[in-house]
Order: sequence, then structure tokens, then C-alpha cells
Amino acid sequence: MTPTSAHQGPASTQAGDQTTESSTPLRVGLLGCGVVGSQVARMILSGADDVRARVGRPVELAGIAVAHPDRPRARLPQDLFTADAQALVARDDIDIIIEVIGGIEPAYHLIMSAIEHGSSVVTANKALLAAHGHEIYAAADAHGVDVYYEAAVAGAIPIVRPLRESLVGDEIRRVMGIVNGTTNYILDKMTTEGVGFDRALAEAQRLGFAESDPTADVEGFDAAAKAAILASLAFHTRIRGSQVYREGITDITPEDIRAARGMGCVIKLLAICEMEPEGVSARVHPALVPEDHPLGVIRGANNAIFVEAREAGHLMFMGPGAGGSPTASAIMGDLVTVARNRTRGVAGPPQSIFGDVPVAGIGTVHTRFHLSIQVRDQPGILSQVASVFARHGVSLQTVQQSALEGASKEDGWSASLRMVVHRTRESDFEACLAELSQSPIVNGDPRFIRVEGM
Amino acid sequence: MTPTSAHQGPASTQAGDQTTESSTPLRVGLLGCGVVGSQVARMILSGADDVRARVGRPVELAGIAVAHPDRPRARLPQDLFTADAQALVARDDIDIIIEVIGGIEPAYHLIMSAIEHGSSVVTANKALLAAHGHEIYAAADAHGVDVYYEAAVAGAIPIVRPLRESLVGDEIRRVMGIVNGTTNYILDKMTTEGVGFDRALAEAQRLGFAESDPTADVEGFDAAAKAAILASLAFHTRIRGSQVYREGITDITPEDIRAARGMGCVIKLLAICEMEPEGVSARVHPALVPEDHPLGVIRGANNAIFVEAREAGHLMFMGPGAGGSPTASAIMGDLVTVARNRTRGVAGPPQSIFGDVPVAGIGTVHTRFHLSIQVRDQPGILSQVASVFARHGVSLQTVQQSALEGASKEDGWSASLRMVVHRTRESDFEACLAELSQSPIVNGDPRFIRVEGM
Repeated sequence: MTPTSAHQGPASTQAGDQTTESSTPLRVGLLGCGVVGSQVARMILSGADDVRARVGRPVELAGIAVAHPDRPRARLPQDLFTADAQALVARDDIDIIIEVIGGIEPAYHLIMSAIEHGSSVVTANKALLAAHGHEIYAAADAHGVDVYYEAAVAGAIPIVRPLRESLVGDEIRRVMGIVNGTTNYILDKMTTEGVGFDRALAEAQRLGFAESDPTADVEGFDAAAKAAILASLAFHTRIRGSQVYREGITDITPEDIRAARGMGCVIKLLAICEMEPEGVSARVHPALVPEDHPLGVIRGANNAIFVEAREAGHLMFMGPGAGGSPTASAIMGDLVTVARNRTRGVAGPPQSIFGDVPVAGIGTVHTRFHLSIQVRDQPGILSQVASVFARHGVSLQTVQQSALEGASKEDGWSASLRMVVHRTRESDFEACLAELSQSPIVNGDPRFIRVEGM
Repeated sequence: MTPTSAHQGPASTQAGDQTTESSTPLRVGLLGCGVVGSQVARMILSGADDVRARVGRPVELAGIAVAHPDRPRARLPQDLFTADAQALVARDDIDIIIEVIGGIEPAYHLIMSAIEHGSSVVTANKALLAAHGHEIYAAADAHGVDVYYEAAVAGAIPIVRPLRESLVGDEIRRVMGIVNGTTNYILDKMTTEGVGFDRALAEAQRLGFAESDPTADVEGFDAAAKAAILASLAFHTRIRGSQVYREGITDITPEDIRAARGMGCVIKLLAICEMEPEGVSARVHPALVPEDHPLGVIRGANNAIFVEAREAGHLMFMGPGAGGSPTASAIMGDLVTVARNRTRGVAGPPQSIFGDVPVAGIGTVHTRFHLSIQVRDQPGILSQVASVFARHGVSLQTVQQSALEGASKEDGWSASLRMVVHRTRESDFEACLAELSQSPIVNGDPRFIRVEGM
């Protein structure tokens, strides 16, 4: 980051820093030095002049805690490294701790210790914030220090600050986004190349978009952690990752993708946070999205977040959702903010938590569904199926009957019914499904996927 | 804005405000009560409980200055209104002034007076900030008060705070956006319905998307003011609206739109701020944009801003760019932020201005161009034209020759050459144009439009 020094022509004419500057440096401890941490270290060291200009005071990297401090690292001074993270967060000369270790422990105890020692904290750790964020925010408030975490959701895309500050005078109704680049890459690959999940995953792993153990991404745990953070911010409450309804994408087949395209839709893994009459619904699941919807056009490993607010209307934020440099950019923005606050002897605005809004279960959610079932190709079937829906007060929007591929007239189950139902309460739809599963006119279990953004 | 009170079920379980609250209200003076001001007044009055919860202190509307205080206004207490704006900003009991009058005067003197009386300021006034923003920011710094202006650019879309805070640790290279809803509506109408500028403008006026005097929008003055604000924020410098290169859309013809579509492009009025070797370039002009570019798909009166940063990569922000409620949402977010700062006895981060980066003239910009000229349909013409480009070091990307509609072979000027040139310095392209204009092989003046996002 060299906005000041990079303007080689212009820089020579600059009038000098105009903010009141203290020459005592702020000192930063960095926990972790992997893909993100090494970029953060590089940006603090090589962008020192710019950081100083923005903060009004020098910012120094005072130590880096890693598992293997003796491992040679290009362009980072070896004497900064230590294996003793606990000693680093307890050091009296540290003002700000940046945590990019990830995971719950030891990150949680290190951050709590840093706060108790009076340091402000910048973290990218979504899993930790979704599990223990509210204890961390309370500790920070009690000690008058900052906890900033723009990098924890959607990488470099500014979404935490807009929700926490820009939209704080509005009423947010819904936040819906693609917040996991790995699964978007996989689903995009399945859509554009017609390949199956396993092959798309293998390709994502080969290119570094997926981990060797992809569970956290493909089962939706990562997206659920981000949904918990977004729902807490949007609705000024406390939602933990474990309270987020979660389905992953491992069951999505090329046939699902083809069926979606037949309806002018694509399949996306969505994180959705909305206010339902029963409370806050936070959920992660694959959904059909129209291919011309702002979320339908998000390609590859990008992220995008769609916000619906009462006064502001529909807003969308998009960009790279992960990666070392984008994540480090978000961390550096937080570092400058936290360092400015320190320099002025204040903390930023506290988390605006006004109480615990109840969490609405998935059954209370109102949405649309796409459903496919196998039936016998005989007169009266559609009427029988439709009567099941009518009995549960679920209204059909479209019905399409087609011959089932690979089936013979003889085995009876030769037709496929594809239906889209109007917006309905999920529990009513579930009751339909249960009755259809039991019905002699339906073969096997119905297959369904939610429909959003239509 | 009723996030707290609107949660009817959840609200009953709320644990109460957890921030330290002072019961002394902060008092707000509102300058102007038109489309935006009346929404702001409504939100402050009807959302008082929510604002109080977010700020940690009650926020009261203490007075509204308007030209005609006796005019009856539904749902706003008549005794709040006054015709004496100067007396309102000078009142000792006012903490925050919200300015939504628009225009340079009397807004400028009222804001300066409010700052001198120790009030913080929230404004949506892009024309004023583009003309005198830096004097206003300096006065605010000198008096230790805030000036916030999220609503001045792109309505409810958070872009000022992301540039000022979220991306402050990165190096912004380019900001390119559709920041005027009126012109986007007109160009979109011309594109989708094939109508001319005058008819599209009349329709925009009929629907309230354009003023009866549309000059500020269609001639690009409004977009130029926003470009000046964006460039100042992105490059930590001072750019005024008058320093922004500006072309409007009044000369765009249905034929231009058709030619663009033939290339898979649409025409958009863009505000572009970028760092060139000679300094900051800020400019507003119509441009060809690929129809699948994130800016190419922005419909109607929406706004969108595309940011390229060194570390963060490509980010995009989109949403409603104008209108009473969206603009009021942005003002309310600023009001809460400024009120929180007051409550804690601090001011927000100062404008990060590090000096005056030189402004690069339009001639120094590097971009692509689409050019069409009338020539005689005879052998060797293309070679002669190409030699002009070669002489000025301008490289042709595509050339398409076609018969000129309505022209007869007999009058000689029967062919049209359409060319796209590779990224080149504008002054070199201008030299080509000048030579082609003088050339006996070319009829009339060449017609060109810049090409962005390809």
C-alpha cells in the first residue's frame, strides 16, 4: 500500500502530513503469518510511510507469532518471529494485535488476553467471531479497546463497516449473499462445464480455491459463520454460527443444475439473514437464483452481498471474497482505523447490540421451492398431487410434466413432475413433502431446492 | 427507521440498551425540508427510540429552516419551522446541523457558521463540497467538529465511508462509476426503446427522474461534482468540481447507441478518477461499456461504482442513487455516527488529505476510443487512414467498413469506417483526429466516443 509514496511525480509536490502527529510509534503484534499474515506483514513494513500519514503516527510491526519461528521467510526480518504467542499478546509495548491464525483455539484465549492487556484487536477469524464474538465484544467494551473484523466476511468487500455504520440509521430487512468463494467456484464450474461435484471440487483444489479437507466450505460451515456475523450486525442482536440453519452443496447434481438452467436459473450457495415474524432467520443452503439476478451473475470465486433496507432500498456489494491480498487490504483498513482511534485516545463505536432477538427456525421461513417427483404417467395424477398441496395451503406457481429419462412405460414410474410453489411457510411445504413421500402415487422421496430472488 | 420497535415479537424480549446513556438530548437543526429533508424529519421523529438506542442518547429535532415556514406540512409540528436559517445555525442549543438545501449559497455560509458555532454537520450537498469542501473540512478540523457527507455521492450506496475508512489501508488506482441516475435512465431508455435523447428526457421529466431544467444532470455537472469528491477521497488530495473534465450526453444519438450495440456495448455516462503518471485524472463523459461489464448492466436510475485497488482488487457497489428515502437513509447513518462521536466527546477521522496532487488534463489520459468517419469507397482509402494513425503512434484494434446509409455512390462519400483504437494517450488520438479532419479523404468531422471497461 503506497498511495503516498507511489505517486512519484505528484509526491514531490506534496505539502506534507497535515494531521497532528505524535512521533511515538504504535506497536503491532501479528498472530499468524500464512497466506494472509505474510501479506499484512509486507504491507505494514513496505507501506510504513503511508500508514504513518493516514494514522498521524508511525505504526511498527513489533513481533510475529508463528509455530515455526526458525523457518526462513523471504523479506521479513527474522528477529520479529517468536513461537510464544501468549508472551507476545502480554507484552507491555504492544498496542494492537492482528489475529490471522484462524480457528477457535488458541485464537480465542490469545485475543481475550490481548484485550485484558489493553490492546485493540483486528481479526479475520469468522469461525471464532461466530462462536464467541459476543464475549469478545463485551470484553473489548469493558476494557475500552477496539475489535474490528472487516476481513471476517467477504474478504476485501466493505460490508461490516457499511452495516455497522453507514446503514445504522436505517432498518435492514434482509441480507442475502454469496459469501463463500470455494462453493461459488464449484457451482459455477458445474454450471458452465456440466461437470459433477467431485470433478469441480478436484479442480478447485488443484487451483488452490479449495482446501485438501474441503468440509468447512462445501458443507456450509464457513458461510454459516459469516451468516451469524451478518445477522448479528444487521439486526443488532447475538446470533451464533451454531444457530444458523445449514445445508452444503455436496448433494447438488449436474441434473439439478440442468433443471435450474431450464428455468432460467443458476444454483448458488446463499447465506440469508432476514427478519421473520418469529424472529431472525439465518440460514445457508443452495438455492435457485434467476441467472439475471445480481447474485446470479457472480462468477468464479467472487463474493457478493445483497442488502435490502427499508429506506435505502436494494444495495449490492461485490468483489473478491478471499485470498491473501484482498483479506490483507481489509485488515489494513481496520488497522488504520484502530490506530487512529488509539492516537486520539478513543475507541470506535461499540457493537450495537440491543438485546437477543429470538432465532426463527427453518420451519418458520417464508420462501419459494422447486420440487421434482416421479409419478405414474396416467390420467388424474396431477389432480391428486395438486390436492395434496391444496390441503396444506401451498399454492403452485408452475407445473411441468415430462417423460422420465431412462424409464420405461412398463415399470410405471415413467413421468416426472417439476413444480415451483409460491412463497409459502417452510413448515407447510414440509407437511406437503411428508404426505407426498407416503403417497402411493409418488415414487421415492421428492427432491426439492429453495428458490430465491425471483 | 424502526429496527428496534418494528420487531414486534422480538422487541418484547429485548434486554434494553447496553450502552452508557446520557439522558440529555442531542439537538438537531435541519436546513431544508424538500424531498430529502421531509424524509429525514420523518425518520428522526418516528424513529426516535431507535436513534436513541443506536446513539446511546436521545436525538431531538430542534428546528427546521425553510423558505415558507407557514406552508402546512403533514405530520411535522408547525412550531419547528422557521424562515431564519442563520438564527437556527447560531442557536446555542443546537449540536448538529443537517443541510439539505443544495446549491452553493446560502448553504456554504450556513455550514461555515454552524461549524464556527461548534456544531457538527451532515450534508448531502455535492455541488457545495465539490466547490468548497476543503475549506469546510479545514474549518471542521479547526473547530474539532465532524462533517459527514455519505449522501452526497450515490445516494444510499455506502461509498464515502468505504473509501475514507475501509480502503484507507490500500492504494486505490481507479474509481469508475455511474453516479447520475437521471442520465442513466435516459441512456437506458434510448438503448432499450430506440428513442432519441429528447423523447427519453421528456419521459424522465414526466416520471420525476429529471428536473424541469435538466442542465446539471444531462451536461454532467452533477456527475463532475461527485467525481471531484470521489477523486479527493480516493487519492487523498483536493480536487474541485471545476477541475473535472466534463462532457454531457445531449449529443448522443440513437445511431451512436445502435453502433454501440453492434459492438456488444452500451453507452453510459461515467465518472472516472484515476492516477495517471502526470497526476490525478478526474473526468465525466459518455463511454462505450461492454454490455456484460458490471457497469453495463446497471438499469434505470440506479447508480454503481467500481473501485480498483492494488490489494483489494475489483470491488463494486450498487443501488439507488437518488430519491428522498435512500438519500435520507445515508443522512441518518451519518447522523447516528456524528451523534455517537458527540456523545463520546470526539470527532471522527479527519479528511485524509496529504497534499495537492497535480490534476492531469484530459490530454494525458490513456484510454480506448471508438471512431467513425465518412470516406470515399475507393481502393487505398483504408491504407491512407491507417497511415495517419501510424504516424501518431496510435494502434488500431478493429476496423469495419460499411456502405453509408442514405448515401449514393455518386456524391462520393459513400462509405463509413468504424474503428476501435487500442489504449492510447488522448493527446495522440486528438492529433490523429485533427489530421483526419483536415484530410481530403475524410468528409466532415470524425465522430468519436471513449471506450471503457473492455
